[in-house]
This record gives sequence, C-alpha cells and structure tokens, in this order.
Amino acid sequence: LTPALEAFLDRNDIPTPFVVVDVDVVEDRYRELVRELPEATVFYAVKANPAAPLLERLVALGSCFDVASPAEIDACVAAGARPQQISYGNTIKKRADIHHAMWVGVRRFSVDCDAELRKVLDVAAQLGVDDVEIGVRLRHDCGGADWPLSRKFGCDPAEVERLIVQAHQAGAATGVSFHVGSQQRDLSAWDDTLRVVAGVLERVRQVGVRVQFLNVGGGFPAQYVDPTASTARYAAAVRDAVARHVPHDAPSLMIEPGRSLVADAGVLRSEVVLVSRRSDTDVDRWVYLDCGKFHGLAETMDEAIRYRLRTRHDGSPTGPVALAGPTCDSADVLYEKTTYHLPLALAEGDHVDVLSTGAYTTTYSSVGFNGFAPLADYYVSGR
Amino acid sequence: LTPALEAFLDRNDIPTPFVVVDVDVVEDRYRELVRELPEATVFYAVKANPAAPLLERLVALGSCFDVASPAEIDACVAAGARPQQISYGNTIKKRADIHHAMWVGVRRFSVDCDAELRKVLDVAAQLGVDDVEIGVRLRHDCGGADWPLSRKFGCDPAEVERLIVQAHQAGAATGVSFHVGSQQRDLSAWDDTLRVVAGVLERVRQVGVRVQFLNVGGGFPAQYVDPTASTARYAAAVRDAVARHVPHDAPSLMIEPGRSLVADAGVLRSEVVLVSRRSDTDVDRWVYLDCGKFHGLAETMDEAIRYRLRTRHDGSPTGPVALAGPTCDSADVLYEKTTYHLPLALAEGDHVDVLSTGAYTTTYSSVGFNGFAPLADYYVSGR
Repeated sequence: LTPALEAFLDRNDIPTPFVVVDVDVVEDRYRELVRELPEATVFYAVKANPAAPLLERLVALGSCFDVASPAEIDACVAAGARPQQISYGNTIKKRADIHHAMWVGVRRFSVDCDAELRKVLDVAAQLGVDDVEIGVRLRHDCGGADWPLSRKFGCDPAEVERLIVQAHQAGAATGVSFHVGSQQRDLSAWDDTLRVVAGVLERVRQVGVRVQFLNVGGGFPAQYVDPTASTARYAAAVRDAVARHVPHDAPSLMIEPGRSLVADAGVLRSEVVLVSRRSDTDVDRWVYLDCGKFHGLAETMDEAIRYRLRTRHDGSPTGPVALAGPTCDSADVLYEKTTYHLPLALAEGDHVDVLSTGAYTTTYSSVGFNGFAPLADYYVSGR
Repeated sequence: LTPALEAFLDRNDIPTPFVVVDVDVVEDRYRELVRELPEATVFYAVKANPAAPLLERLVALGSCFDVASPAEIDACVAAGARPQQISYGNTIKKRADIHHAMWVGVRRFSVDCDAELRKVLDVAAQLGVDDVEIGVRLRHDCGGADWPLSRKFGCDPAEVERLIVQAHQAGAATGVSFHVGSQQRDLSAWDDTLRVVAGVLERVRQVGVRVQFLNVGGGFPAQYVDPTASTARYAAAVRDAVARHVPHDAPSLMIEPGRSLVADAGVLRSEVVLVSRRSDTDVDRWVYLDCGKFHGLAETMDEAIRYRLRTRHDGSPTGPVALAGPTCDSADVLYEKTTYHLPLALAEGDHVDVLSTGAYTTTYSSVGFNGFAPLADYYVSGR
C-alpha cells in the first residue's frame, strides 16, 4: 500500500467498512498503459468506479471514457470531459438515453443487433446528427477470464458485417468492438479474437467499407491472489495480435481498461465481527466481517474474484478459514470453497484489509440490505 | 393483482423500474397466518422489506419483528414497535450493535457459537440487563429450499445444548431456533428438523434446563413459477411436527415469515429496452429489461427464484426468450438456463411486470451500478 493509503488507514477513526483509493496510483497505471500501448486511445470504463476524484484526474491526464448510462455521461462531463471523449459502450440503451447522450454531444455508440442500430440511427436522424459513430460488438468466446462473459453481448461475425455495412450506408463511421472478459488470464485471447475480427474487416472491405476504429475492450488484470503478467506483456499481446491480423491500414485502436487502472489503487478496510468454531472438533474457523457480498464484495459471487487479504497478525501462524459477510443471508459468504488461511490470532475487532478493491466495489453495494449502510468510499492523493 | 395495484400501474406516469406494494395484501397474509397458526407469535423478518408503511401496518396488527441490524431496530421502533416485540435474529453482531439494541430495550438475541454468546452476556452485564433471552441456532440441512442455507449459520445439536446450558447458567432465558431455508418446498422439512430439536430439548431437560421458546424460522413460500402448497398446509405441517416431537410442556412458538407475507403483495414494473435476435437463424430472442440483477432482482442469482411475468400481450403466441438486465455486466442475466416464453409481439417500450416482488428486491438494489438509480418503491392501500 502507498504511504497515502497507510496514512489514511492509520487514522483509525473512520467507521468500517470503507474503501479508500489512492488517485495517484490510478494516474501511474494510466501513464504506464499509455507508455506501453501508445497507439491505443484509453477509454476508462467508468462503471469500474465513477467517483468524481478519479474522473477528474483522468480528465486531466487526457483519458477518454466508456460509459454505460446517461448518469455516467453526466458524471464525466461534470468532471470536465468533452462529449467527444465519451463512448457509449452499453449495447442496451433506451431511446431517451440515446437522445440524452446525443444532445450532450456524445457521438460514439455500441450496438450488437438490428434493433439497437435502428434506435441509434433513428435518434440521430431526429436530432439532425450526421456524425454518429457505430461500434458493432462481436461475440467471441475465448475463455480464460475470471469474470467471464455470457451470451448477453455481441453478435456473430456475419451479423457484425451486416450491421457495419448497414451503419455505413446510413452515413455513420463504423468500428468493431469486442471484449475478452474481465481479468483475462490468457494472453492469447486477443490474438484469438483479432483473427476473427480480421476476417470481418476483410469482408466488409470487399464491399467497400473501411472500418475506422477497433475497440479491443478491457480484460487487463488487477492483482488478486493468482499472479498475473505485467502490463507490458499484456500490451505486447495486444500489439502483436493487431500487427499479425490487421497489418495494413489499421483502424484507430481503442482500449477500455477499468479494473486494471483502479482496482489496485484501493483497499477495503473491514472489521472482524465474529470468529467462530462451532465445535471442539471443528477445524475450520468461520470469520465474519462487517462487509460482505451485498456491501461491496459482489465480485466474490461464485468466488470468482479472489482478493488478497491483510491483517495486523500477518506473519504469525495461520489456519484455514471460511469468510462471510454480516447479513442474515446465506448467500452472503465470500469464500468457503476457496481455502483462505488467516492468522490464528485474528480476533473480533481486528481489521481485515481487502486489497485491490478500488474497482467494482462501491457501486455494487446495496442501498441497505439487512439495514447495513452502503459501502463508504474515500479518495486520497499525496501529490 | 389487486385493484389498488392495478390503479397505480394504470397511472403510467411513473418512471420504470419500480416496485409497488399493496399493504392490504400484507395485512391479509398476516391475518391468514395468525388464523392458521394461532399458537405461534409472528416475528416479521424485516430484511424482506423494511419500508415504513409495511412496518407501521404490521405494528398496528400486533406483529413482532425479527431484525438483522441496529438500523432495522430503529426502523421498527420508529414504526411504533415496542422493543419487547423485537428479536435480534442475526447471529453476527458487533458489540456496539448489541449495546445499541439493549439500550433501546431489545432483550432477545440469537447466537450460534461461544464467542457470540459471550458478547451478548458481556454487554448485558455491562448494562446491568438481567432479563436477556438467548436463542441458540441449530444447523440442520433439510434440503428443499429455493434459496438454500449454507454452513454460515447454526451449530450442531451438541453445541446447541452446551450453549443453552451456558446461557441458562448465566441467568438468561433460552430458546432454540432453526431455519429450514427460504421458499422451502418440502413440507416435511419442519418435521425433519424438529425431530433433532426434540432431542436437544430432552437432553437439556435432563440437566435441569427448560427451554422457553422455540423459533421455527421462515420458509413459508411466495407464489413464483412453481406452484406451492397453501398457508394452511404449511401451518399444519409445522403444527403437526411440533405436536409429534414436542408434545408436552412445549416452549412458546415463534415464526419468522418475510417472503410469505410481503412478496406476493408487490409487483415490479420494468420496461423492455431491447429485443434482439442476433441472426436470422437465431431462434432465441434476448429481451433486455431496464431492471436486472443489480437493481432489485438479485434473487435471480443462479436463477434460484423464478418470478412470474406479465405483459400486455399475454394470451398471444409466445416463443422462448433469455432475459437480462440493462447493465454492461455479463452477470446481469436474469434467466438464460430457465426457459421463459414471452409473447412474440413483445417490443421495445412495452412493460414487463415481475410478480411477487414485494420481498427481497428493494434493499438488494445497488446504490447505482452502471449509473442506474436504485429501484424505486411505492406503497398503496385501498382501505
């Protein structure tokens, strides 16, 4: 943890649970990504963490933004982003929301089916917008992601081609987008998917359409329990895949990091409410924290994301534990199948710091399930 | 749906998504339960829906309350409940929360391990409270629940006995509690569990402890897709099981309904944002609603709770659909493995009413994942 985070945690006067994020770390990650993959324009995935201090810092750094809703557009604009820096990446949009986006000045929209393309083109026509940009999302299951994709998004290559041609004929600029899945561990995922994208680009070129942008999505990792490769290696994987499959006349490159920019910048401080052994013969302890699945740690669903933990007893003897949240809900278990080991000395009232929790925590928090308040969040900077 | 709900929905001027609950239905359900199982005291499980209009109505009806947190205690007291009507059923409590509860006047607490019992007794001693009541929670896996229990709660029979004796020796009144799992479909679950409880009661009696209360938990159902038995049959199952296993000198009976009192009283109105077919050969439609897993429909996790749906096209030809929410999260899918059939005429802008959504919806809603506002809720009454 950075000195700014440690200093904040040392205050010890802030009620748990809370997340604190060091905005300088987000800046460092942004700069690292731009250094390693300078040919790509960064569109920060606002859904990972839409807090104003983060957005303001990213605006200052020149980042663009990938948004999921009108409220996220407004948050970016309030933070100083120009509408041209915003891409409306959600393929599921109400007409009223498209209308709001275009009225604000957003021009880039993702679609993955006829009906959605028609909505965007309809609203553009209605508002007299003639410079709309359509990214068509490809569905390609490449496996390897800790938070996997579903059939919810994207269409098959033939449909991508059809929609691109249709958008082109309607006068829109066009692009292809895909997502390899969040916290993607397989570096070959981009190569695998770009091979398919290259076929699409080639076939639409044959009917006279040149695609202007290529959105390679997110998937760069944060540092959870299982080690991952460096940003440099991920960037190289993307660069090599683009060079291999789209060598000539490459469209401009977009990348949509969320998790990889902000997760490691944050730490969630929780408190141990109870440590229980249910019988003398029970070897497992259950450790109950004051933060669980419904107040920020939703990504422990199916134990998908396995966070690193830190306690003041680290280094002393440990034993296996199951970890759970404080609600009466039986589903509010963080890790039971995954064996975590925590210090035997861990006791009621101790803190458990959940690391790399700057992304996908605060906004997942429930409004007040079981009467517990939403997860509080704070933003610090040493600069 | 009741006339009051239909009238509210007919207004058509309230932005979706929202839940509207008819408080009269909750009253009817409460009265039905008391009629069918008059020997039990009803402790409404506040976590199912803690809205003030519900709590106030239940206070007027003489209900008691099962709470999970200090905020739920405060909500009950604000609605007019006396602290003696409140049972703090969460087995995971901070000392500060126990302190708050006792200070308010709450006396009944659930525990399931040594450490938690010690906390409750410590705080009682500290505050000079000498009339504390301890319910010890048994863990007994009886299967059959749509929202199953985990190893998170409860201890084995030998541990229950030990804790009861310990609480008794400390001067507390004692009880045994269990929970058969929410939306329990197997009417024999109570019999199965009460057989184990009877053994516990017998063995503590042998060492001179008479248990004062028996908390048979929740588990009574709401009306989702799969039909369930009547309240009368559930009540008979509980009564018969108690009569069979605890025939003499029975402790006072507590029941903790949540879902069965309020779920069917509510309807969630959502709007179709998008209907997509991804290719000409794709037989499945995807229907995207403006409400998903992160804004109220969390119980669709693993497709556990299967809600009934209503549209204005009902009765016309249908076809299979997958159903998903509006966020960019791949996990925000409501039903994909469970095949739902919806009218072929269903189109963007149509409403989809999700029935029996008065319980476990509003409080599960996220604070704003993807920038979508929390689920709104309204309460109506025709009386």
